Amino acid sequence: MTNRGFTLWFTGLSGAGKSTLAEIIEQKLKDRGRYVEVLDGDIVRTNLSKGLGFSKEDRDTNIRRIGFVAHLLSRNGVAAITAAISPYRDIRDECRAMIGNFVEVYVKCPVSVCADRDVKGLYAKAIAGEIPHFTGVSDPYEEPENAEIVVETDLESKEASADKIIARLEELGYLDPVASSCATAGDEDDELVRQRLEELGYV
Amino acid sequence: MTNRGFTLWFTGLSGAGKSTLAEIIEQKLKDRGRYVEVLDGDIVRTNLSKGLGFSKEDRDTNIRRIGFVAHLLSRNGVAAITAAISPYRDIRDECRAMIGNFVEVYVKCPVSVCADRDVKGLYAKAIAGEIPHFTGVSDPYEEPENAEIVVETDLESKEASADKIIARLEELGYLDPVASSCATAGDEDDELVRQRLEELGYV
Repeated sequence: MTNRGFTLWFTGLSGAGKSTLAEIIEQKLKDRGRYVEVLDGDIVRTNLSKGLGFSKEDRDTNIRRIGFVAHLLSRNGVAAITAAISPYRDIRDECRAMIGNFVEVYVKCPVSVCADRDVKGLYAKAIAGEIPHFTGVSDPYEEPENAEIVVETDLESKEASADKIIARLEELGYLDPVASSCATAGDEDDELVRQRLEELGYV
Repeated sequence: MTNRGFTLWFTGLSGAGKSTLAEIIEQKLKDRGRYVEVLDGDIVRTNLSKGLGFSKEDRDTNIRRIGFVAHLLSRNGVAAITAAISPYRDIRDECRAMIGNFVEVYVKCPVSVCADRDVKGLYAKAIAGEIPHFTGVSDPYEEPENAEIVVETDLESKEASADKIIARLEELGYLDPVASSCATAGDEDDELVRQRLEELGYV
């Protein structure tokens, strides 16, 4: 069984769907018997970066800290999933260089759609000028140029995005294809049945 | 094979021998096929706590961050080893409560012996009043009251201290006794020979 650690680095606007996808992937990886840790932007700010604000410098420091912890986890066999906006390309690339086993997922979604969703009510405040340095409104977001995976959450379902991510992780050798992995007995049986049916031409 | 994660928390004065013992234990655990990460006080200050000083409040924040990272590692099967002075009992106990699988090692050594060793030349400066808040000289060190392990580095060799720590980790169920662990082939052979000789009454 493959248990190479890696970092799955989500990046994208607030409301694009990073945390939602991170949770789905977390469960899928746990179902395959992997150790998984989600480093959510808010959790890290509370525990490692209290006192930092949202200026470029403070954001960079926060992202470097997330990168450092993801590095420690992934070099010890863990699947580390980060779900912070991480708007600046240079710091993401710095983390990529440090970590090595780095898989970048661009969670792409137009700012207008994120603002319509406005899950946390932050866009309304940002557009009204009440939140300074709000990514996509009053602060820049630099799109990845070489992300391993791009998901478009305004165009595809979250299940489709999650499947795309899992398939790419298998392709990159970070996950075994399901049939040979440590899935739960139930999943394994289902998969065997599916394969059998496929061989017989039913699916 | 047991691979329960845990945190081995060294505490003691500067120069008591925390880092030296951490390195020896790190190697012994790696030899047994375990994932190990040493969180050295200096490394963590550079990567997670730049800007923090040595006031009680800043020290507490630094130790809480080390504890948070050790927690993430040890709940993912890793043996996390911390080697910071961590002078305050309440924060160590807070980390103990958060982490759960927590093994405290008091690296005991009189301040006079540490000052004589003065590996980093810091005691001379601290005694001359050039370094404020220096633990054991101008800042308090609170001894652990219920450490799982106490080693006395002015009285015992580092090998003896390390053996004591490994034996206690086996006793606590965090490590398999060597015979059944994932030791290297060479060690395993030696152990088999020893067992055979023992059965035959030679040792």
